Amino acid sequence: MQGKFLTIEGTEGVGKTTNIEFIKGWLEAKGISYVNTREPGGTPLAEGIRQLLLEPRDEIVCSETELLLMFAGRAQHLDQVIEPQLTAGNWVLCDRFTDATYAYQGAGRKMGFDLISNLESMIQGDLRPDLTLILDIPVEQGLQRAGERSEPDRFEQEQTEFFKRVREAYHNIAEQYPERCVLIDASVSLPLVQAQIGDALDNFWSLLEECR
Amino acid sequence: MQGKFLTIEGTEGVGKTTNIEFIKGWLEAKGISYVNTREPGGTPLAEGIRQLLLEPRDEIVCSETELLLMFAGRAQHLDQVIEPQLTAGNWVLCDRFTDATYAYQGAGRKMGFDLISNLESMIQGDLRPDLTLILDIPVEQGLQRAGERSEPDRFEQEQTEFFKRVREAYHNIAEQYPERCVLIDASVSLPLVQAQIGDALDNFWSLLEECR
Repeated sequence: MQGKFLTIEGTEGVGKTTNIEFIKGWLEAKGISYVNTREPGGTPLAEGIRQLLLEPRDEIVCSETELLLMFAGRAQHLDQVIEPQLTAGNWVLCDRFTDATYAYQGAGRKMGFDLISNLESMIQGDLRPDLTLILDIPVEQGLQRAGERSEPDRFEQEQTEFFKRVREAYHNIAEQYPERCVLIDASVSLPLVQAQIGDALDNFWSLLEECR
Repeated sequence: MQGKFLTIEGTEGVGKTTNIEFIKGWLEAKGISYVNTREPGGTPLAEGIRQLLLEPRDEIVCSETELLLMFAGRAQHLDQVIEPQLTAGNWVLCDRFTDATYAYQGAGRKMGFDLISNLESMIQGDLRPDLTLILDIPVEQGLQRAGERSEPDRFEQEQTEFFKRVREAYHNIAEQYPERCVLIDASVSLPLVQAQIGDALDNFWSLLEECR
């Protein structure tokens, strides 16, 4: 049976890394075989593309270039990792996917959604995540957390207004695709965040059991 | 006045580098201010993309990834170099452009032309070269010349059949766009090749003079 495709989304400092560990624990407790991967990245070539995308540079990076690099890495990741793993029956747990492109490039960079939607169809056909957990936090709170962590990458150097547009786009995605998206309040304490994630995963699992 | 956009195309070992020097001499003799650039590449970021594209790697590079990387670099090159230079009235002499994408990815990799045509419209709008010199040589003769030169890159490692499809695609492009393309027989001696290139440039110049 085809594996399931889980994605985690959210703005800077929302706690994706910590919560991915929690999700891995849930998958392991269920005895599900899975791969944990990320975008941009997930293969040696796609990680090379990630590096080009993230490293701060003097050169102005035009929005179309950024968008095409995102989808170039995604095409490779799908072809070499995501699709073969799902076909082999393994689950795929991916840190960011195309929802991030709509949020960051579409809303953050104000590119709009038509070009992204065209590229999504070109590259993904009708493949979409089965479950998307969108970790949500007020922008200032997230940036403060991210700022304590490390030197900012090219995206983290953006201004607050950029991240507000990104957050709003994630809210819209959660509303538009309620069948696969769960918005998680990540502004509360870690145990309370993980209780919400645990519920979302358990609900997803129950639905799968019902369909069997 | 807007500068003119010249592109040079051709398969491996066709003598692009040598003949670009000849074209630069012609431009300088006419007192034309120009930039000489190349694809993939032409800006620091686009040169990073070029490196990802050309270096031989164990990982299979899927055709869509290759195509999107080509256009990602092109978007950056257009935005940062080609369009501002043309607008400033300088000519742009570019070693390969979108015709190479039709030939190598469309025909060589058998991706077809629809996806490329969509990306071309997305990224270039209606910008096309004003003059394209397609240097043409039998595949075996070109590969022999290229082989004597250096270690093969990821494209040069392809088989003869691949390059035959590329060459045929260039012939088709020359037929389809006679108003901007000139097919140059590059299998003959260098002075004879350069006589053809000189004629093509002089004709182009005469047409420009007539339009003034």
